[in-house]
Amino acid sequence: MLDDPRAARAAFRAGTAASTSGWADGYAQANLVALPREHAYDMLLFAQRNPKPCPLLEVTDAGAWHTRTADADLRTDLPRYRVWRGGELVDEPTDVRAHWRPDLVTFLIGCSFSFEAALVEAGIGLRHVEEGVTVPMYRTNRPCAPAGAFSGPLVVTMRPVRADLVAAAVTATARVPQVHGAPVHIGSPESLGVVLEKPDYGDPVTVRDGEVPVFWACGVTPQAALAASGVPFAITHAPGHMFITDIRESALRTG
Amino acid sequence: MLDDPRAARAAFRAGTAASTSGWADGYAQANLVALPREHAYDMLLFAQRNPKPCPLLEVTDAGAWHTRTADADLRTDLPRYRVWRGGELVDEPTDVRAHWRPDLVTFLIGCSFSFEAALVEAGIGLRHVEEGVTVPMYRTNRPCAPAGAFSGPLVVTMRPVRADLVAAAVTATARVPQVHGAPVHIGSPESLGVVLEKPDYGDPVTVRDGEVPVFWACGVTPQAALAASGVPFAITHAPGHMFITDIRESALRTG
Repeated sequence: MLDDPRAARAAFRAGTAASTSGWADGYAQANLVALPREHAYDMLLFAQRNPKPCPLLEVTDAGAWHTRTADADLRTDLPRYRVWRGGELVDEPTDVRAHWRPDLVTFLIGCSFSFEAALVEAGIGLRHVEEGVTVPMYRTNRPCAPAGAFSGPLVVTMRPVRADLVAAAVTATARVPQVHGAPVHIGSPESLGVVLEKPDYGDPVTVRDGEVPVFWACGVTPQAALAASGVPFAITHAPGHMFITDIRESALRTG
Repeated sequence: MLDDPRAARAAFRAGTAASTSGWADGYAQANLVALPREHAYDMLLFAQRNPKPCPLLEVTDAGAWHTRTADADLRTDLPRYRVWRGGELVDEPTDVRAHWRPDLVTFLIGCSFSFEAALVEAGIGLRHVEEGVTVPMYRTNRPCAPAGAFSGPLVVTMRPVRADLVAAAVTATARVPQVHGAPVHIGSPESLGVVLEKPDYGDPVTVRDGEVPVFWACGVTPQAALAASGVPFAITHAPGHMFITDIRESALRTG
């Protein structure tokens, strides 16, 4: 793991294909979705209508592989990508220059890696980190506001929080609206259509006595909508293999 | 003036053509921009890249004249509209049903009428209201981030604030990010390229000894970019003749 975002991206550009969790501590990481221009309007509208699961950090001009968020090449500087055709995963390369097209618009979407730093600073432990697993994610019974080709359920992450710390978890994450912001639901998993022991993505974690399950909007939401849309072509990051920006996490905080 | 938003919209639908300042106190008002779908992507991208002057409350589906923000008809329920062809103002009707097209996408953009309520609640007087004039607006030397056909300077409003209340003005408006949020510039008009006595829109106001000029991003910004773009067709509200929503202003506040 490298602490300097520029050095981290250089390592990924040179072929290192690791999860970015723990890399470049203090710098914001982003989800990447690249779509043909003809489908980009629907994605932009989907993000506008569903800002909690889809907090946009940047939307590039068509064909551009540079970004205002870092001195980087978006085609090479992520550790691993996924290439999609008609909703099917067709390749997981570490470089997408061969797949790039001049009509691709890239969306950089806030990632909960940044948001978890705010929780830890507020004194709230992360159970999935303690247990060495991936955060549990659930497809809820709450539909997103549809936009053109894109629709689907709100996907959430869950972190157990001690009852006396739930308010602190709310205020700490409310201050990072560009990385999902305040929880969308606290307690009562059944009214969200969720069974805690059975996440749809990631792994279940222990919820101890005196703890409440707290649910935040998740960046998997737009990816699930994308996969279901049947859009003919898209490139995304591979799960956990995010784009590391030069934006300090502290710069994303409001108030 | 009517206090109920539904009654206010019914009056406008019946032909009343008044400025909405002071109507439906406590309910959010919105700027309206309707554009053909082929130009809507650039406007949506312009708003994403310039969220302070262009805080989106809603973007409709093409052709839709209903809105999630109110039980209303967007073609009839504003007191007055402007119709634009090739950047030229061609009509100022009180009803745009005859101009409506099935490809029009409507943008509802937060309006400073709501934002001023937060200032008044914080004990900060509004000089332009005291002096009975329109708030002064200035084209600054700060360019917006361009997006396709749309580019131009950031336009700001200015309100003089007593030096000991400037911090309160910041915190009060930081809590309403969907209506322009915190100031973009405080003091030093010259470094913004602004001469206080010579606003580009609206009227000059008195700045007293012990007061500091405080500048907020202004919803005229996207309208100026629209007028300069040469887009072949657009409909907007007429200045001061806003769309009154059913959204309580308090619902737009964070924290």
